[in-house]
Amino acid sequence: MKSFDKDKLKRIIDAAAGRIPADIVIKNSRIIDVYNCSIIDNKDIAIIDGVIAGIGEYDGKEVVDANGAYASPGFIDGHIHIESSYVTPEEMGRLVTPHGTTTIIADPHEIVNVAGLDGMKYMIDAAEHTKLDIKYMLPSCVPATPFEHSGAVINADDMKKIIDNEHILGLGEFMNFVGVAAGDDMVLDKLVTAKNAGKLIDGHSPGLSGKDLNAYIAAGIHDDHECETVEDALNRVAGGMYVMLREGSACHNLRTLLKAVTNDNDRRFILCSDDRQPKTILELGHLDNHLSICVEEGIDALHAIRMASLNAAECFGLNDRGAIAPGLRADIVLIKDLKSFEATQVYIGGEKVAEDGKYLFDVERTDMSSMTGSFKVKNFSADRLKLNLSSNKVKVIDIMPGGVVTGSGMAEITLDDNGDFVYDSGQDIVKIAVVERHHGTGDVGVGLLRGYGIKHGAIAVSIAHDSHNIITVGTNDSDIELAVNELIRQQGGIILVRDGRVIDSMPFIVGGIMTDKSGEWVNEHLSHIHESAFSELGISGDVEPVMTLCFMSLPVIPSLKLTDMGLFDVDKFEFTSVEAD
Amino acid sequence: MKSFDKDKLKRIIDAAAGRIPADIVIKNSRIIDVYNCSIIDNKDIAIIDGVIAGIGEYDGKEVVDANGAYASPGFIDGHIHIESSYVTPEEMGRLVTPHGTTTIIADPHEIVNVAGLDGMKYMIDAAEHTKLDIKYMLPSCVPATPFEHSGAVINADDMKKIIDNEHILGLGEFMNFVGVAAGDDMVLDKLVTAKNAGKLIDGHSPGLSGKDLNAYIAAGIHDDHECETVEDALNRVAGGMYVMLREGSACHNLRTLLKAVTNDNDRRFILCSDDRQPKTILELGHLDNHLSICVEEGIDALHAIRMASLNAAECFGLNDRGAIAPGLRADIVLIKDLKSFEATQVYIGGEKVAEDGKYLFDVERTDMSSMTGSFKVKNFSADRLKLNLSSNKVKVIDIMPGGVVTGSGMAEITLDDNGDFVYDSGQDIVKIAVVERHHGTGDVGVGLLRGYGIKHGAIAVSIAHDSHNIITVGTNDSDIELAVNELIRQQGGIILVRDGRVIDSMPFIVGGIMTDKSGEWVNEHLSHIHESAFSELGISGDVEPVMTLCFMSLPVIPSLKLTDMGLFDVDKFEFTSVEAD
Repeated sequence: MKSFDKDKLKRIIDAAAGRIPADIVIKNSRIIDVYNCSIIDNKDIAIIDGVIAGIGEYDGKEVVDANGAYASPGFIDGHIHIESSYVTPEEMGRLVTPHGTTTIIADPHEIVNVAGLDGMKYMIDAAEHTKLDIKYMLPSCVPATPFEHSGAVINADDMKKIIDNEHILGLGEFMNFVGVAAGDDMVLDKLVTAKNAGKLIDGHSPGLSGKDLNAYIAAGIHDDHECETVEDALNRVAGGMYVMLREGSACHNLRTLLKAVTNDNDRRFILCSDDRQPKTILELGHLDNHLSICVEEGIDALHAIRMASLNAAECFGLNDRGAIAPGLRADIVLIKDLKSFEATQVYIGGEKVAEDGKYLFDVERTDMSSMTGSFKVKNFSADRLKLNLSSNKVKVIDIMPGGVVTGSGMAEITLDDNGDFVYDSGQDIVKIAVVERHHGTGDVGVGLLRGYGIKHGAIAVSIAHDSHNIITVGTNDSDIELAVNELIRQQGGIILVRDGRVIDSMPFIVGGIMTDKSGEWVNEHLSHIHESAFSELGISGDVEPVMTLCFMSLPVIPSLKLTDMGLFDVDKFEFTSVEAD
Repeated sequence: MKSFDKDKLKRIIDAAAGRIPADIVIKNSRIIDVYNCSIIDNKDIAIIDGVIAGIGEYDGKEVVDANGAYASPGFIDGHIHIESSYVTPEEMGRLVTPHGTTTIIADPHEIVNVAGLDGMKYMIDAAEHTKLDIKYMLPSCVPATPFEHSGAVINADDMKKIIDNEHILGLGEFMNFVGVAAGDDMVLDKLVTAKNAGKLIDGHSPGLSGKDLNAYIAAGIHDDHECETVEDALNRVAGGMYVMLREGSACHNLRTLLKAVTNDNDRRFILCSDDRQPKTILELGHLDNHLSICVEEGIDALHAIRMASLNAAECFGLNDRGAIAPGLRADIVLIKDLKSFEATQVYIGGEKVAEDGKYLFDVERTDMSSMTGSFKVKNFSADRLKLNLSSNKVKVIDIMPGGVVTGSGMAEITLDDNGDFVYDSGQDIVKIAVVERHHGTGDVGVGLLRGYGIKHGAIAVSIAHDSHNIITVGTNDSDIELAVNELIRQQGGIILVRDGRVIDSMPFIVGGIMTDKSGEWVNEHLSHIHESAFSELGISGDVEPVMTLCFMSLPVIPSLKLTDMGLFDVDKFEFTSVEAD
């Protein structure tokens, strides 16, 4: 625990009282008071030592003319996975701060599944290298399921080693809501660990209701970002949860859930992204986009800003921020209007960090050596892709475009003399494999995928929720083998192979799931990867070539999935054979 | 820090999920959801291990039929001085819980001024003997001023010894707002002590505004109960303070301040009493009375209840209460209607503690031996009351009926040969003395009082804000001497003397400021004291005989006051002579 600085407190009081000049005085702004939901005109904001000293008439060493812009408290994203943007925390800071975001609550579930507590420490270190204030939730469910090999296992004893870290606010989304509602012993150990440390526990309980929801809340789960309906949201608010209104790249719950927000309950709602890809940030923005949608949907602009600031600060016990008021961090956004919420200047801790859409600092990264070179794959070759089937009636994973749910289908395929699958261009069925890559277990799961449309070559990715093994799909074993080996060589990411040649690739050297490049790089290269996937590999235009694969090994989403341990029937919650029963 | 109980958590989850029966199920109530501000009908409240497991359809070992009553979260008083009721914490619990109060935030400023940290410890121990949940703020300003001798001095180092106590939420009202706004060094030490301990700091800043208010808030002062105007309240809310709406025995700010409360800002308001005498509690109730007034003034009943529950819980970081929701303490009030707010049953921590206006337990008190027998008065006799004046033109303390402010008047009096005051029944001027009683310093301050009306004998009290020395007033030195000596003998309280005989008395053996008797005893005896004061001593009917004296030695309230150290000119903030200048 940092000791509170008496001299600093004295300076803040002196500046507030006007006895000493402020460091910065912002004049000519329309100050948004999120406590009263009103606008304060004709007053200055005095900042000293990174803190707001007072609102009134002040002198300062530096005077900022806001030119009549609104001065809003900085925006807070209540739940985001940085890794889902494929960039590191430093770059995330560069991307979102120009949009008025000053704090994010990040759940590094992906990198911790890859690298365990080393991943957590890397993310904390990386956060020190951006002006964006990043608070973390310690991932609660690593691995997400026992049906795949992740890079790490985090149990309650592991949590105790790091839960007291000042950058960690609590446990990340408790996806094992079944285990919570059942009162599973290992779950209880984790919950108690968080509670004993005085920390929060984020929720994740899609569709949960009634007594199971009661049990989940009674266990101490504090918020939820997985509401799909107004009823979901109101039930959770009534139970005392904060409800997060999510607008990400994949999930768009905001417009629907805003219908649950009233003047009576709006202090229990906050805004979040969950996943926000660079493309989305570059084209639509971040929480400024959420706020615009709120206003479009009829929410009062100041109430919307309150959801993005004070409510989030209260939700996470961040008593040092959330409003423009004496003694709080000077996290301030100057915004042009209350419709676009476009930021002209962004201050974090009293420092101007972004102006007119640009981050004002170079991106300097922390040492990422602990996150690189971590691929450990044993004995992989095309031989490991052989299926040895006794029947040509098989189960296939059916892609259902536009989502992450898959169907569990049946097909009759052609077998060779050894019982292996033979590709038939008339069927749109290909091999899919998941290659364990963390511990060199040598595990390879092989199955069959229908509806991906691929007609040539192979694709391989190391973004494979939530354990992030290697997922690969191809029309022939040889191209699959090359794709996997080249992916390992480039330390992960995405790779496209055709006819024995790499035709496109994106290396993600940070844990195999993030790049050390920029958001623009991600956006451009991913766009190019998509084009190559469609034009060169012939992948169907109605599927997202990469994202579709990324969720193929997540054995909690219906109905048929493939992990490094084999084909998994999610509906029956057990492994199954490729041969039809 | 208590370790969180895993087995208990398991039972709560199991009860919430309906796998095991609850301890108590409340059926047939209209549940008040303070998060959405709505009513939940046709659902049960399941309680186990003192905690609300869930709201739904439940079975329990005991079933309570609420008969259609509203089920409200228990009421929380955000700021109260128990000592001002003249009863101990155990009795306070008996008095207020039947009115739906389940938690109070008490500031034992008076007893700590008398007995220092021993007084704080006594109050904490006493709180363990009532079902009412009493949280404390550690008095911040002991002594309140350097112009009188209190029983104790509490500096930052003293605070460090006890601030981490789990029953202490922070520092009590920081009355030295001038010192805070000025950034005084000793004040800073206290503020930093609280902040380092992660504790809150209550405010007290009557009339403060502008930059001084900014400085006070920037210092970390968290709330205020001293607003007199709507503007005061809105300014403090805008500054990020919680504003307490006070309705006590002496101060009545509620109706006025409710005009500041809107649907946009009402989450920043809470209810408090500050001082609530037994008479007021017995006749009008406690927070149920506040709620009735809120509704009379047009506040929605559920919003009013939210101020009395969730808002207060949030204000004080009491995350375990404030609503009827899974996982929270079962602090529940069944109320007949949303106009009188009359409680039919009151549950605290899942235990029924009051029913139909009656507390259901005997009052058992903690050991109070550390608080008794503490009077140390040196060399007191009638001789010490002599004035040795060189002029008959004197300053007199002018009583201004109906308040605690006094005037600073002039008079011409009769002197004897030694320059001592001679009582003249035609003038309504009498001697007033303040006798130091904590350390045996032998200090006695003597002055002259006009407008009290006393015509016979003397009165003495040991309730003397904030240092609680002995204040006495009389027409003759002999009766004053007897009153003081008899007051010491009975260990404080109130005493009336006439013609060399005690005619009425109320002993307050607990630190000289509280009784070990009941609230009813206080009410009846105080009423009798008042009658005796009017009929036997001839005290003027337009002054409150006891309360008027209690504030005579508080040297921060204008304009002329008397402490054990002498006559004090509050306007000039310095001691002064009885002789006119």
